[in-house]
Amino acid sequence: MTDYPPAFTELVEALRQLPSVGPRSAERHALFLLQADAAVSERLAAAVTKARTEIHPCRHCGFYAQGADSLCSICSSPQRDSSLWCVVEQPSDVIKLEKSNFFRGLYHVLGGRLSPLDKIGPEDLSIAKMEQRLAEAPPQEAVLALAADAEGETTALYLAPILKKAGVKVSRLAMGLPAGGGLEYADSVTLGYALSGRREL
Amino acid sequence: MTDYPPAFTELVEALRQLPSVGPRSAERHALFLLQADAAVSERLAAAVTKARTEIHPCRHCGFYAQGADSLCSICSSPQRDSSLWCVVEQPSDVIKLEKSNFFRGLYHVLGGRLSPLDKIGPEDLSIAKMEQRLAEAPPQEAVLALAADAEGETTALYLAPILKKAGVKVSRLAMGLPAGGGLEYADSVTLGYALSGRREL
Repeated sequence: MTDYPPAFTELVEALRQLPSVGPRSAERHALFLLQADAAVSERLAAAVTKARTEIHPCRHCGFYAQGADSLCSICSSPQRDSSLWCVVEQPSDVIKLEKSNFFRGLYHVLGGRLSPLDKIGPEDLSIAKMEQRLAEAPPQEAVLALAADAEGETTALYLAPILKKAGVKVSRLAMGLPAGGGLEYADSVTLGYALSGRREL
Repeated sequence: MTDYPPAFTELVEALRQLPSVGPRSAERHALFLLQADAAVSERLAAAVTKARTEIHPCRHCGFYAQGADSLCSICSSPQRDSSLWCVVEQPSDVIKLEKSNFFRGLYHVLGGRLSPLDKIGPEDLSIAKMEQRLAEAPPQEAVLALAADAEGETTALYLAPILKKAGVKVSRLAMGLPAGGGLEYADSVTLGYALSGRREL
């Protein structure tokens, strides 16, 4: 088999970095970028660079904001309910929650979760920033929307006293059966949570 | 639902240009590029730009070559059989044929095929370049590896006399059942070709 130009192989390797893009998809993308109009690839390269340059964490909550030291569209919106916070791990969690259309409050993005095994401690997360926000304008309630695993649990147990000390009511996301999921697909831990969290009709 | 920073939306739109990347994949790619190390996105942007800048058509055959006005790895290899050509439509066809490992000759990439409906005539393809190569160093045989449809047929009928005039034996790819394909999946046109092209055992 022949050798492709090094720049082609490099492009394929760079595209393979993307999540769930394998060698065949990466090659197809690379061929497309070479055969399509030059504007297509220029637009992609420019958009990647621009997004990394222009998107910064929001000065308040840590979600994506355009421009350094500015507020995100959620923190700067007068229509959001500042008495309710949702504490999440990643900016992508904000997008997930926004898509559910159930939450109209503000967010606080931690930037990760406590994980002693990975040497991620409280100082690696934006907890100091959260305490600063609590001192300036505390909400009435904060929902800890963290992952339902050991590290999410640890992080929740660490954050709860901090929030409670500031007079904030702390809650966690409900655990139970996922929507559309039958009992036959639920694991026993999920079933246990679903049972203990049962609601009267 | 909230508005994302414009640079984020632009990145998602730029990623959606890629073949079979829909809105959800594009968003996942964009989130990945923002959350991953800056080196990851820089590498992608640089590779796209570099590939478009450095990859040019081979001076002889039109396949991808690194650097302007240079030869591709196939044309510059002394191990390839210059007495046999394969005429293809696109550079990606070269990659497909190379992967089959059956062909050890040289290529000629037309850059498309004759299509009166799309106003693509002989002057839009690298046919003049092919005639120049024929005058300089004609092969003994040229395989027309064009698509098995009306436009591929038209292109083959146009190219055959040009090649024959230069004393080149012209052939086309065999048509018939695809490997691993049973009769029940073959359409009637394919079956017709398979019957008329039957080989004695």
